[in-house]
Order: sequence, then structure tokens, then C-alpha cells
Amino acid sequence: MQFADRLNNVETSAIRELFKLLGKPGIISFAGGFPDPAMFDVEGIREASNEALTDEPGGALQYGATEGYGPLRDQLSALMATKGARVQAEQLIVTTGSQQALDLLGKTMISPGDKVIVEGPTFLATIQCFRLYGAELISAPIDAEGVKTDELEQLIAQHKPKFVYLIPTFGNPSGAMLSMERRKKVLEMAVRYNTLIVEDDPYGELYFGEPPPPSMLALSESVPGSRELLAHCGSLSKVLSPGLRVGWMIAPAELLAKATMCKQFSDAHTSTFAQATAAQYLKAGRMPAMLLNVRKVYAERAAAMGRALQQTLGDAVGFTQPAGGLFFWARLTGAGGKTQDAGDFAKKAIEQGVAFVPGAPFYAAQPDMSTFRLSFATADVAKIEEGVGRLGKAL
Amino acid sequence: MQFADRLNNVETSAIRELFKLLGKPGIISFAGGFPDPAMFDVEGIREASNEALTDEPGGALQYGATEGYGPLRDQLSALMATKGARVQAEQLIVTTGSQQALDLLGKTMISPGDKVIVEGPTFLATIQCFRLYGAELISAPIDAEGVKTDELEQLIAQHKPKFVYLIPTFGNPSGAMLSMERRKKVLEMAVRYNTLIVEDDPYGELYFGEPPPPSMLALSESVPGSRELLAHCGSLSKVLSPGLRVGWMIAPAELLAKATMCKQFSDAHTSTFAQATAAQYLKAGRMPAMLLNVRKVYAERAAAMGRALQQTLGDAVGFTQPAGGLFFWARLTGAGGKTQDAGDFAKKAIEQGVAFVPGAPFYAAQPDMSTFRLSFATADVAKIEEGVGRLGKAL
Repeated sequence: MQFADRLNNVETSAIRELFKLLGKPGIISFAGGFPDPAMFDVEGIREASNEALTDEPGGALQYGATEGYGPLRDQLSALMATKGARVQAEQLIVTTGSQQALDLLGKTMISPGDKVIVEGPTFLATIQCFRLYGAELISAPIDAEGVKTDELEQLIAQHKPKFVYLIPTFGNPSGAMLSMERRKKVLEMAVRYNTLIVEDDPYGELYFGEPPPPSMLALSESVPGSRELLAHCGSLSKVLSPGLRVGWMIAPAELLAKATMCKQFSDAHTSTFAQATAAQYLKAGRMPAMLLNVRKVYAERAAAMGRALQQTLGDAVGFTQPAGGLFFWARLTGAGGKTQDAGDFAKKAIEQGVAFVPGAPFYAAQPDMSTFRLSFATADVAKIEEGVGRLGKAL
Repeated sequence: MQFADRLNNVETSAIRELFKLLGKPGIISFAGGFPDPAMFDVEGIREASNEALTDEPGGALQYGATEGYGPLRDQLSALMATKGARVQAEQLIVTTGSQQALDLLGKTMISPGDKVIVEGPTFLATIQCFRLYGAELISAPIDAEGVKTDELEQLIAQHKPKFVYLIPTFGNPSGAMLSMERRKKVLEMAVRYNTLIVEDDPYGELYFGEPPPPSMLALSESVPGSRELLAHCGSLSKVLSPGLRVGWMIAPAELLAKATMCKQFSDAHTSTFAQATAAQYLKAGRMPAMLLNVRKVYAERAAAMGRALQQTLGDAVGFTQPAGGLFFWARLTGAGGKTQDAGDFAKKAIEQGVAFVPGAPFYAAQPDMSTFRLSFATADVAKIEEGVGRLGKAL
């Protein structure tokens, strides 16, 4: 069978192969990008879905508008307002997880050969998603304050990309947070170079201490012209439930209309049953208390992992303590003659009964082979300490 | 903003414009392609979703495998067995409605310029979906027994298409049913020309009298080599609820693996909440009784519409009485000097307070401007008689 040419642009990921080893009994996994299912508000979701079926069974079970279920769009508009962004319900569409927002951006914007700038490192599924549409990806370097804006500006000027894709707040895999100053610089750059910026923000609510700076969407009000060059992707996956597959995209009107047309032929619309359930959940007002608990638990786990890494691995590993999100991003320094190859380290770790993901696949270009990602979300503090102990043995 | 070149291949449909007029008060609509929400088994779905959250809340709310939720794949395998098709759970993937199965076929198979043969007329969203991937569509003529196999064979020989897309059972919009003899001929053709056949089957369960012939998937066992050249799309949308967005695709292993990879970057996976609910619903065994009722109600409506059309419009309209599905496909004959332009007729009908869809947009090429589609699914018998009366006035 002869498949479409676009499939030549991607390959089954190395990570997928690694995940097959996770079935090994007794393994402690820092590998996933999943929230902890123990924190799902199952009763709240049950009540919300029952309410949806009582309130408007036709709306919850019938075909719906491609743009999304009206009451959910209203709730998401209100949710964005609590985060300082003024968004009318008709300025957003509901997507089947924020993964679909990425897919729709690819389908709507990318012709084969078009250039797209992403962070190095960035979300693995973004790389593959955009490459399927034929994008040539340019990798912009980051540090603990997110993408380096001087380098980004040079890359924009040089490559004239179709758009720039960023995860400014607690990035996956980097955990980095784009500083306030750099957020403004990126928005000014958008206007100066007439370049679309995509802000992917699934983790912004998962902060441990002070809230992060406002999203670029919220900040765009203070940078004239930038709102018309900004797409923003949100998701309930990391804060309520990934299984609902409810995300959303906010974008300039013309882009939103084209993306809606593309979505019509991708899946007609996102499950109205899931949308109506999410709408009822948000309406019931259970989100703030639930989030308080999620933040507290993840903060404890992140603190425990930072302590354990320092005590056990010392100067053989470098990292910045994350202020939110789900991930540590670390580097093997080579201190004490230890390995600097995170792929090797991952294999030895599996032998010791602990799993994580090496960093190389997260780079669209020039991978740093010494990097790796640890998730602290799904293991409790005792498991984290035990798992980091095993990392010590593996190293 | 400069969008992707592929958007030049499609246009916002004329039907979408027509649908905007449907809000007019008192209008009777034969325009939709929707099932009747009054027949949704709301209590059954409520019980199923509650059971899903009790039974395995993690499974219903967490990220899941791209291929689909295991218990649902098992239930769908069992469902296919009741329809005479032997399908292992791992030979199917769950899709976000069968619309996504079409999208994944496009993404996986179609390079710009590739040819795809579809029925003339065929499902409108299929035309647009494949064109977005750059397909050049070839239209194969049909009659009341479905696609004309002699013409189809010539077109296959001439164009060497990437695949042939058919809705063999109660097609949308045609309502036609591919005869047993032609089903076998198509399968033999697949083998003779080494051409992939896509069988889209959302309506097969909605028969009014005798069950339709076995699906081509079921028949493929009797045509050596044909199973390896057949993809089959199924859906719960027309028989349980469109809002769940649960469809599935059965395909040869290599194609299924590539489509799964594409789906990973389209939406990661279909809502596990919807999948777990569907799995519990199928497990509870409520489907057969529910389907009996749905068939009975639609059969009455189809009979009423056929009678009313004959009495009211007489020889000005030609049609074949459908044996299942949701649609009448009719032609203005021009008898008695009446109009043969279904677009004109649709506008006059709206003025009289009744809506339907003209047939031209359902053709990928050489539209028959005298055709139109009437759905009998959502109006009761009294409304159908009243609506057809209004059609009479409009004509």
C-alpha cells in the first residue's frame, strides 16, 4: 500500500518504544506527562454529567455546532476572565483536547516547506504534528526564563516563519517560565515582524507559590496590534480530566473561521456529551477548590523531587527547581566522570526499576543529548524518594 | 494572514448558508442529517456513564491509548460479530465520530494530486475532507442499486485511484442500497486492480423491512484477498447518539498502524469518558431493543413521506422508496412544466415554511441540478404530511 508523502516527515517516536518497558512490575515512573488520576474530582464530574443529561439531553447527545457547545463557550469565556483575559464566547472554539488545536493550526496555516519556530526543547507531539503538515521547524534556544528573545528575534527576521509556537508557562518539557519582560518583548516582536504567535497554555494554573505572570493573551491588551497576531490554546486536561478531551483555541476572527471549517472535516465537533459535562462542572463552581488541592499536592511532590535529586545525584545533575507544571528538566553535567548520555542513563535506570524520558526527542534540531525529563505528578513523596534513590544507583 | 494552500481546495458550503435560514419560526425541516433526539435512550446513557465512573474512573477520565479504550474495542468487536463480520479488537481503532475516520484516511493516504473515486452523489463532508488533503475526486454514477459497477471498473482502470469511497447501505444522500451482486463485484475489482475500497456504514442498522445484504466487510471472507484491501468505517452516531462522537475504523494492519500514528497528532485519543460510556451501554445489552424501536419509528415516517410525496407532487418528482437510512433522494422531472432546478425549488420551499437540501453540492463533479434530499428522521408523521403539503405549494 502506498501511503501519503507526508508520512515520510515523521517517525514513530523513541519515547513510544521506551513506554513499552513501563509494564515491568514494580517500576516507578517519572516518564509520563499525565496528571495524577487520584486527584480527579470523580463525584463532581458525575454530578456534572447527570446534570447535563437532565438539563438539556438533546444538547448533550445530539450533533452540535463545530464551534462548540454554547454554554461551554460561555463558561470558558468566564474562566479566561478570571485569568485576566477578556475573551468573548464567539472568540474561542472548543477543540478535542488542545492537541486538536495544534492540528487545526497545522491544517489551517502550514503549507509544505513553510517554516515554524518552536522552542528547543518543546512538546514532542507538536513537533510531529506540524511536520505532518510539511513544516520545516526552526529551534529557538531557551533558558530558565523561557525562550531567549534576542535569538528569537534573529530567527524571525531570518526565517520569516508562518508562526512561532511557545509554551510560555511551565513549558513541557522544560518547566521554564517566560519572564514578564520577555512576554512583552515577544508581543512587540509579533507586531514588528507581523508574525503570528501561538501561546500554548495547558499548565498555567498549576503554580506552586506566586501565580505566574499574566498570559501573553492577557498582556496583549497592553501591546497595540498584538492581539490580532496571537492564538492561545487552553485545556482542561491537566486541571480537570484529560479523558474529557476538552480544549479551546482563541484566535483572530479570520483564523478562527478557517480553523472551524477545517475542524468540520476533522471530527464535525467535539463530543457534546463531554462539552456539556465540562460546562456543568465549571458552572457548579468546584474548580477553584479542586485546583487549590492539586497545586498543594504537586508543590509537595516537586519540592520532594528537588531535595532528593540534590541529595542523591549532587553535582552530576543540573536543574532549575520548577515553580509549577508537572516536570523537572535536568542535565547530566559529567561531574565525577559520570555519563553525559541521557539515553544510556535511561536504559540503566529501567534496569534499576525507575523510568524517565531522555531529552533528545524534544528538540526539533540540535538535540542536547545530556538532557532528560522527570515528571513528579503521579508518584507520591515516598515513591519519588525511592525512585530518585534508584536513579542514584543507575548513575 | 496567509493560510495554507490546501484551503484553496474547499469552499464554505452552500448548504451552510441554507441552514442559516432554518431558524425561521414554524419551519418544518427535512434538511438535516440528524437522528431524532426524542429517540435517544437518555436513561440508558446516564446509567452507562455512571457505571463507567464507578467501574474504572481512571480509565474514563485519564489519558488513554490512541487506538481506543480496551473495553470499548472488545464491545465493538462483539457488535461487528452480530453483523456477520469477524473482527478482532486489535483490528479496529476508535475514532472521534466516523468523520474522523475519513479525516485519518485522507491524512494517511492522500498526497496532493492523488485521485479518489466517490459515488455521485456522495456525503458532502467526505468531498470537502478529501479535497483538503489535495485529492482529485472522480465521480462514479449510481442508480437505486448503488454504484454502477461497470462504470466503476472503467474509472478504476483509467484513473488508478488511491482508493474508492462508497456508502453501500442506505447511502447519504442517495438512500440507495448496493445489491449483493454488486458488492461481490466491487470486492473482486479491489483484488483485480489492487485498489483499496473504503466502506462507510453509518446507516446499515436502520433498515425497515428485511435486513440489508451483509456489509462488504462481512462478504470479504468469501472473496480471497479482498479483506486486505478493505477499510470499513462504523459509527454509533445514527443508532445511539452523535454527541458521544464514537466511531471506529477497521482496516488492514499496516494502514491501521499509520492511521493510529496520524490520530496521535490529531487529538491524541477519542474522549475516554465517551468511550467508557459507550462501552458500558453496549455491555448492558440495551442496543437491540432500542434499535427495534428506532427502526419502527423511521419506517413509519419513511412510508408516510413516500405516500405524501406521491399524492402531493405526483409525477413532478421521481424517487425510489428507501428501504432504510434517513433520506429520500428525489428528482424534479419537469412534468407539467414545473421547475427542474432544485435550488430554485428550495428557495420557494423556505418561503412556504419547509426546508430541504438541493442535491448539487453532493456531487464531486457533473452535478444533477434537478436532485434534492429529504430527511424523514426528525419530523413526526403529521409534520411530514404538513411539510410535503407545503412542498406542493412551493412547486
